[in-house]
Amino acid sequence: MRIQLQGIRAAPGMTLGRARLVAATQHAIDQRPLASHEVEAELARLHQALEVARQELKDLRGRLHGVLAAEVNEFIDAHCLMLSDGELLRGLDELIRVGHYRADAALKKQRDRLAGIFDAMNDPYMRSRREDIDQVVGRVMSALQRQTTAAERRLAARVGEILVADMVAPSDMAQWAQAGLLGIVAATGSTYSHSAILARSLNLPMLVGTLDALSSIHDDDLILLDAEQGCAIVHPEPTDLARYRRWQRSQQGRGRSLAALAQAPSRTADGVEIHLYANAELGDDVARARRDGADGIGLYRSEFLFMRHKQLPTEEEQFIAYRDLVLGMGGAPVTIRTLDLGADKADAAGLLVRREENPALGVRGIRLALRFPAVFGTQIRAILRAACYGPVRVLVPMVTQSDELIAVRALFNMAREELQREGIDLPERLPLGAMIEVPAAAINVRALLDHADFLAIGSNDLTQYVLAADRDNDALGNLYTPLQPALLRLLAFVIHTCRKVGKPVSLCGEIGGDVHFTALLLALGLSEFSMHPSQLLPVRERLSQLDRSVLLRQAPRLLRAYTYEDVEQVLASMTESASCRPQTDAPSA
Amino acid sequence: MRIQLQGIRAAPGMTLGRARLVAATQHAIDQRPLASHEVEAELARLHQALEVARQELKDLRGRLHGVLAAEVNEFIDAHCLMLSDGELLRGLDELIRVGHYRADAALKKQRDRLAGIFDAMNDPYMRSRREDIDQVVGRVMSALQRQTTAAERRLAARVGEILVADMVAPSDMAQWAQAGLLGIVAATGSTYSHSAILARSLNLPMLVGTLDALSSIHDDDLILLDAEQGCAIVHPEPTDLARYRRWQRSQQGRGRSLAALAQAPSRTADGVEIHLYANAELGDDVARARRDGADGIGLYRSEFLFMRHKQLPTEEEQFIAYRDLVLGMGGAPVTIRTLDLGADKADAAGLLVRREENPALGVRGIRLALRFPAVFGTQIRAILRAACYGPVRVLVPMVTQSDELIAVRALFNMAREELQREGIDLPERLPLGAMIEVPAAAINVRALLDHADFLAIGSNDLTQYVLAADRDNDALGNLYTPLQPALLRLLAFVIHTCRKVGKPVSLCGEIGGDVHFTALLLALGLSEFSMHPSQLLPVRERLSQLDRSVLLRQAPRLLRAYTYEDVEQVLASMTESASCRPQTDAPSA
Repeated sequence: MRIQLQGIRAAPGMTLGRARLVAATQHAIDQRPLASHEVEAELARLHQALEVARQELKDLRGRLHGVLAAEVNEFIDAHCLMLSDGELLRGLDELIRVGHYRADAALKKQRDRLAGIFDAMNDPYMRSRREDIDQVVGRVMSALQRQTTAAERRLAARVGEILVADMVAPSDMAQWAQAGLLGIVAATGSTYSHSAILARSLNLPMLVGTLDALSSIHDDDLILLDAEQGCAIVHPEPTDLARYRRWQRSQQGRGRSLAALAQAPSRTADGVEIHLYANAELGDDVARARRDGADGIGLYRSEFLFMRHKQLPTEEEQFIAYRDLVLGMGGAPVTIRTLDLGADKADAAGLLVRREENPALGVRGIRLALRFPAVFGTQIRAILRAACYGPVRVLVPMVTQSDELIAVRALFNMAREELQREGIDLPERLPLGAMIEVPAAAINVRALLDHADFLAIGSNDLTQYVLAADRDNDALGNLYTPLQPALLRLLAFVIHTCRKVGKPVSLCGEIGGDVHFTALLLALGLSEFSMHPSQLLPVRERLSQLDRSVLLRQAPRLLRAYTYEDVEQVLASMTESASCRPQTDAPSA
Repeated sequence: MRIQLQGIRAAPGMTLGRARLVAATQHAIDQRPLASHEVEAELARLHQALEVARQELKDLRGRLHGVLAAEVNEFIDAHCLMLSDGELLRGLDELIRVGHYRADAALKKQRDRLAGIFDAMNDPYMRSRREDIDQVVGRVMSALQRQTTAAERRLAARVGEILVADMVAPSDMAQWAQAGLLGIVAATGSTYSHSAILARSLNLPMLVGTLDALSSIHDDDLILLDAEQGCAIVHPEPTDLARYRRWQRSQQGRGRSLAALAQAPSRTADGVEIHLYANAELGDDVARARRDGADGIGLYRSEFLFMRHKQLPTEEEQFIAYRDLVLGMGGAPVTIRTLDLGADKADAAGLLVRREENPALGVRGIRLALRFPAVFGTQIRAILRAACYGPVRVLVPMVTQSDELIAVRALFNMAREELQREGIDLPERLPLGAMIEVPAAAINVRALLDHADFLAIGSNDLTQYVLAADRDNDALGNLYTPLQPALLRLLAFVIHTCRKVGKPVSLCGEIGGDVHFTALLLALGLSEFSMHPSQLLPVRERLSQLDRSVLLRQAPRLLRAYTYEDVEQVLASMTESASCRPQTDAPSA
């Protein structure tokens, strides 16, 4: 019988597949003691499984790009550390060698022992670390069982499946996507979580808040996941499948028409030129940015270089990375954001920072960089040297007040003198910009503009601080929305203040690349957008359908709205009146 | 030789005492094994020491009031839990009974074992938990040693001492203050940390940021701590001591002149009436509020009732607490703030909330209360019942948008109907107010005013969010200041919007009771202040010295300032021109 479940679209698209409900993996443990002559083979079996588990984690690391990678890598690092922990390994060896446990029984015993310690601590954080142990042990268990049963069974099982779960961790999603997963139906979660951002980046259709998913869907049910409409249809009927085929055909057509936009100008329907920049770190992203006609790199997250190894990157490594980026963009401007890490990530980059109760409100971004002048100085030298090869702009993250910009400028001047003394070729004075993420920076933006050559609004973090709502906290999904009137007023204020003093301002948060917000941002006066390269063509297409003058005229209505529901309504009516060439969504079947 | 060290005043006052440098306590461990007949006596000795340690922690709990208590109690609870941990106690008993360890050697062994586990985890949070273990073990060790050496030696040693340390935990400060500590010189720290707030509340002069303190001061050095001037003088000379005596005399005179203000009206020099409310939870505070002529209770932090036990307070317990508060104020209005807890504190109140990466940006205040409708409903019933005994206002913490106020109003209406069905006497509709702490609430305050009868600005949290700087993070002391132009503009905007629609607005953060900010707040248009009862008289005195019309006229200059240094300067010149009766600080010697 057909069942239609409502959810919230976290990543767009449609897909058809078999349901796979995710629950904790169950493993049957072989408790028979080993014979003495079996001990060495069992030890080898264990160590092979450990190696497979380590390798899996290592592989996982290579598959994501940029900041997403950095964030997933944190989990991966913790798990890798556990798998190499001397204490743990000795304990396992001893259980097998002395206790004649089988590898899986030894793992189970060790897990129970650690879990007992964590449980005794009676602390919710400790209990969450216990989950890490379960995950690591589960991974080694799987590797052990794959040795005896079908290899790669667990991974292969994802091909053609739609995952149905309470929520999905980014690391699991990355692994499953690589194994052929088609889409995700989550019972909880928010559209602004890292998982949702990752799903969009991986082009995996995803629903969140699908309350009845776990009770209404069974393993192997056929599901039509229609994230476009925000629903999942269990046991779809012929009319549903026809709709899916129509959507597929329209997508193919759309792919062709989008490709045609690759080198077209970025213009609104009323002919106003808009600048589209790319957020990019890796070679693929840079290539795509050029192919799809980006006006430059609007955001290069340099911490990406710092998160790859446990050691800090040398000046030479950084120089080469920045220079290649500049060369790769062939003369288009490249905006390098200086090191943007907080106490929650700095460890992984080899910087020692005290743990913080609220890392989002702590020593991060420029606050952190200024505490490590040697590390920051090395980055500055590398940027200056790379800037000889093409136009580079420097973007400072997490600026609160102008003295931070003054300090950065002074450090650049010092590095310049140093390099000159070393006889190294030097570029002109580089444009220095501030990220607008801290509410104080937005409210007092005029003071920053005395010291900044340009601004870039980091709308993700700005939203988080203005609403005092952690964007990674799924439990706050109902608050964290960019349509909050307070946020829109701040955005409008920052954009207009920049325009008044004649300095450029771009926006490089999620909404910059989301076509659902293009009309809104045009209405607020924005004319520089920075986004993931995959969004360049969709946004360019959207721009061509919108009359900017109509939107600007109606902006005051938007800024008078009291609630996000009001904003939604006003925006819908504004967008309708400003839409010139309605999007032809689906040709009739 | 006289040495003068510069620091930053975290709590005012002067004091003269001997220096006591605080480093990790060293204990000599007796490693000789016990004879069999000594085992039982040693076990008794250990358990007596454990009991003393538990009792010390329990005593500590009784000495602070209100929210400060709640915050210190969190540490205390964690330590109490460790002291009662079955696993730990069994391990200790076994070491003594089976291993014939002496109690202190057993403690040391157990500590090393736990420390080893934590260290192996290679995680900064774990390492900080390890410090807890050291502190708990240190406390039991002290108790053990007091049994053999001078009882209460460690506590008694604080009489007449000035603590010199890198930084001081609130729990230690509370204990030492009770033992006769005179003041604190900290090498790091910020003036807005909990330690600094606690020092002000305990009337302990305190300097932070006294960089060379630990290298320039030695144990038992005589120190004149002059927090008024922001310095500590090692080996003071006769002229220093004469200055101290002058200050003491002026303080006595000042105490008398302040007492005379107890029932005086709160008026500015130009005769404008200002309302002064008290932040109060305990009987003593309420009595002081009445004695010193508060216009009512501006902030009753109801979570105080929730943090006292691990169980939730019943409706009856809450009703009695609220009713007694209302009766205690004898007809003056009482503002009860509804449950204000975050994921970082909810546990201690017996509410189960998922641990959060950034609790300050998480499910807290009204966000949390609305997730526990049964708990919140019970509080609402208790408030409604207490409101029959006198005027009660309801204040909702951590409001982001108006739908939260609408939900609270609906819950009040439901509770009212319920109580009516039960035949319980009911008050009129209670005024409902919103705390302004979230930047979005301040920016979009007009929308909230459609649903709120009054507002209370929580300047501590508002500052924290506007600056994206955790106020408890000492490392951010340089950013966290209420003189930030962005914050002042928001405050002025909220106050003026309230005035325009004719609804009252008060301010109940730290600056409300700090005479250094009285002129600033008057200039921004504030006419209702709420503060710790100890500040009522000093603020009333300050008001009487300031010409409000002069301040209001000059406010635009303040709001045009770009940096906090500008604000400081403008404020100093404004205050000078508005000061009518210069404070006579010290009669000549």
